[in-house]
Formats: sequence, C-alpha cells, structure tokens
Amino acid sequence: MLNKITISEVGPRDGLQNCRGVMPTDMKARWITALYEAGVREIEVGSFVPPKLFPQLADTAEMVAHAKTLPGLRVLALVPNLRGAQAAIAAGVDAMGFPLSVSETHSKKNLRQTHDQAVQNVRQIAALIATQPKDQRPSFEGALSTAFGCSIEGVISEETVLRLAERLIEAGVDELGLSDTVGYANPVQVKRLIRRTREVAGADKVKSVHLHNSYGQGLANAFAAWEEGIETFDSSLGGLGGCPSSPGASGNIVTEDLVQMFHAMGVETGINMNKLIACRRFLEEGLPGEPLYGFTPNAGIPKHMVA
Amino acid sequence: MLNKITISEVGPRDGLQNCRGVMPTDMKARWITALYEAGVREIEVGSFVPPKLFPQLADTAEMVAHAKTLPGLRVLALVPNLRGAQAAIAAGVDAMGFPLSVSETHSKKNLRQTHDQAVQNVRQIAALIATQPKDQRPSFEGALSTAFGCSIEGVISEETVLRLAERLIEAGVDELGLSDTVGYANPVQVKRLIRRTREVAGADKVKSVHLHNSYGQGLANAFAAWEEGIETFDSSLGGLGGCPSSPGASGNIVTEDLVQMFHAMGVETGINMNKLIACRRFLEEGLPGEPLYGFTPNAGIPKHMVA
Repeated sequence: MLNKITISEVGPRDGLQNCRGVMPTDMKARWITALYEAGVREIEVGSFVPPKLFPQLADTAEMVAHAKTLPGLRVLALVPNLRGAQAAIAAGVDAMGFPLSVSETHSKKNLRQTHDQAVQNVRQIAALIATQPKDQRPSFEGALSTAFGCSIEGVISEETVLRLAERLIEAGVDELGLSDTVGYANPVQVKRLIRRTREVAGADKVKSVHLHNSYGQGLANAFAAWEEGIETFDSSLGGLGGCPSSPGASGNIVTEDLVQMFHAMGVETGINMNKLIACRRFLEEGLPGEPLYGFTPNAGIPKHMVA
Repeated sequence: MLNKITISEVGPRDGLQNCRGVMPTDMKARWITALYEAGVREIEVGSFVPPKLFPQLADTAEMVAHAKTLPGLRVLALVPNLRGAQAAIAAGVDAMGFPLSVSETHSKKNLRQTHDQAVQNVRQIAALIATQPKDQRPSFEGALSTAFGCSIEGVISEETVLRLAERLIEAGVDELGLSDTVGYANPVQVKRLIRRTREVAGADKVKSVHLHNSYGQGLANAFAAWEEGIETFDSSLGGLGGCPSSPGASGNIVTEDLVQMFHAMGVETGINMNKLIACRRFLEEGLPGEPLYGFTPNAGIPKHMVA
C-alpha cells in the first residue's frame, strides 16, 4: 500500500468521448491547464481515432501540444491502431494506451477488431515505437477492457484475461492496466484479478486500474486496488464518461471523491481539492446539460480537512 | 471475512427521522412487510423518542407490534433514555440501541446528554433489562455515534472512542456498534478503529457498523469493515437518512447498492434484489419529493447476476 499515488485524469478522453456535446478546443485547453494547476500530473488528453466518428476528440493533437507545455505533466492518449500510434508519436505523447477488450464481442463493436487483430495491431505499434530514438520513446500501455465483466457478454473468464495479458506483454506493451469498462467489478474480484494478472505478467507490469461507478462500488474497488499496491488510478472530473459500445455503463469514478478518499486515508495525490472542484465549471459551461456526479462537491470538504 | 452477513435496514428509523414528510402508519407497516418479504431479517423500526419532537416516529410501538408478527424478523428500536427503554420493552423489541455520541457537543445537541449522563442512562437501562425474565430480555447495543468524525467538532480522538467503548461495556451493553453518523469515515480508519475497539471491548462485542455516504465512501467503508469480519451492516433503502443535529450529513449507505456489492462478492444476504428494489415504491408514494439514492436501481441488475 503506497502513501502516494497518481491520479490519471481521463475526463478529456473517456469523459468527452461519451458526451453528446463537443467542448470547444480553447475551453478544453483551459480545463487541462486548470487540472494541472490543481495538481494533476497525468492526463489522458484524447484519443487518436477518426474525427468523423468522434468529433469531440478531433483536436487531440492540439491538446497533446498544449498539455506538453505544462512542465512535469505526463500526457497520455489512446490509440486504436498503427495509424493512431503514428499520430500520437508525431504529436509527442509521453504514453499511449491500446484498449484491448477481453470481451471479443465488445472488441468487435468498439474497435472492429478480433483479439488476433488487436494483438497484431499492438505488435505493429510496439515495433513502431522501437524505431524511435531511445530517449523519445513513449511508454506503451495495454488496457485490458471489460476485464471484470461485459454488459454484452456478461461474465468474463479470468483465464481469458490472463491469456490476453500474456499476449499483450509478448506483443510488446510496457505495462498492463485492468479496466472495469462497465462498472461490474467488485472489490474481492479486483484484488484477485490484480494478483493473478501479476502472476502471469510480472508484478511490475500491472500498476494501474481504470474503474467505473455504475453500481456505486467504484471507490470500494479503488480501495481494494490500493490495498494491492496499485499506483495509478484513472478517474474523471464529475464522473464524466461511460462507453458508447457498452449498454448500461455509467461514468468513470469521480476524481473529486477518489481524491477525497485518498486524502482522508492519509495518501498523497498532490492535488488541491478546492482547485480541483473549481475545475467543474469547465464542464458546467462547456457541456451544458451533461450530468455531473460526485458527493464531495455537494458535501463540502470536511472542516477538519480544509487546508 | 464472512460469506454470509446481516443487513440491518434502518430506513424506518434513521431514514424517516430525517425526512420532512411523515409516512402514514399503514404504509410504513406495508413497507416493513415488503422488506421482510424481500428477505430482510433485521429492521430498526423506530425510536422511542418524544412524539412531539419526532412525529414521524410516533407510531414506533405499533411498528414493533406489527414487525413482531413476521416470523424470524429481528426487531430493533432506538432508545435515548430509561423511559424509551420501558416503552421498548413494553412493545416487545428484540433489541434496543442507545446512541452515545463520542462528540460530546453532538451528544448534547442530539440527546441533550453529557457523556456522564448518557453512561448513567445506559446503566439504568441495563438494570431495567436485567429485571426482565431471562428468556424475554432484549439485547442491548451501545452505538458509538460520530466515532469517525463529527461535522461540529471535526476530528474525534480515537482514545475518546475507546474510553467510551469501555464505559459502555462496563455500564452493561451487550454489544457495541461503530457509527459514522456524518459520513466522514475512510476505509483505513474503519479497519483501524474496529481493531482497536475490539482490543479494549473484546472481539465478540464489536459486530456491527453504521455507515453514511456523504462522501461516496460508504461502500468502501463497508468493504473494509467486512474484511475485518463485521457481521451486521446498517443501511437504508434509497439511502434515506442523515442527521438533524449534524450539518452536512447525507443519507445512510444505500441498501440496494450494499446488497449488490455483497452479492457480487459472493457473500450471502438472504435478500432478493428485485423484491428489494420494488420496496422503493413505498418511499416514492409515502414520501413524495424526498430524494432517493442508489446506483443499482438505475443501472439494473447485471445480466449475469439475474436469478
């Protein structure tokens, strides 16, 4: 259990991807700056996907360029294929993630890729990264989506998760993340799957989790993952998010509540809660009508925790 | 960690106590019956407090009488003093709880009792119970309210919790419960305080927790308590509740979400989720305009978990 963890804000990617509205580019840049000023040091700023399918993310290269002006910020983007990876490298990301859905039904629906096609894409991306000068190579993370269950397939076999974890490592990813894409995970399962995945992939390869809050268990799952030594927790401001290919999935775990829990536990995040909550105004202004989640902004910071 | 736990539904007491509306007596009785039919086997049906102060709970004796007609249901009521305990015994409760606020400021505001007065009341109630025939004696639980923090006093010293735990045991309670009256608890604290309280009071004396969800950490805290071997979890349907003497406190943890988490973890509760969710109609009809919480009723039972 670490006394300092990393919050990886995924609102600008997972959040916006699932909103009907399109946030203006300049507002998105100001939102990213505000998150940075609140102390966030890792942000997934977008996804290199076809702008026709995701107009909300069409300015991802600009967002990477903007985010790279903020000293010490780790800038991530999602890539679904080699073409996306080329764009990510050109834009100058620090890390890229490839989402491999353990539910092959979801993989076909979300990325139009079978498992074999996805692994092949991962191999090509890893080869591309290897051609870059050593000191400029972005880190490459394989995200095991729907690892805890799928709203289409239902139960996901842990054996399948483990087999795909091995294949991703073999295909050249640097790290693996476990993603509860639809919010089906429970804390017992989170602990078990982290342990099992580390057994096949290596303890140093499984450092992050991506959790959703469809059943309100998101913070319980985050606590369970923290107890297993997980370092990096994806979350989104206001709990923005969901998954267009996953019926019933609701938003990511709420950054504000996750930070509140860690701070209450005495775990450092480097984030200033008042400044973080103030970032919600970009969502209120830039995505009118979009529901925002979170208990902490309503309850207020407990008086004994106000800095 | 137990593979079977008890859900203690506190909606008819902690929930209604904090609602502006007054649920009609016959509807309350039908709600209790519906909870029972959904599989709930422990219900706090009311509080023996002055009806002038709490008109919502004025029919507590009737509720006890009704609930006692349901075979195998454990019927609880809250008592703030000897007079309440006399009424509880007359009504025929299976167990009564005395809420001792570790925050003395809160104790004075909530019960108009200092710690010394509260302990004296507990002693008198224990003596009264001892005069009952052995096979008819209700169980007597001391609830350590605001044990994890107080929205008036702020931080609550764990040493004070432990000292009061000892005093309650010495004054004659059968069991102790740890209550997060305002929702300030975090899972690390929950684990630590359960362990420490057991050290001073005996492991067999600390079996239950009462959690609120003001910061969305309620299920994380419940999971932490379950990991420590806690058997009984208070919660309320729709997350009804709060505390009139605690500014900022929001509702109890949501029974529906708590049950969903335990079932997902493979822990038995004896409760049928569809029937439980159907009980919400009593709240919708009987408490119009009252906000209801809960993720599971909106997300729907995951398809792989539908019985």
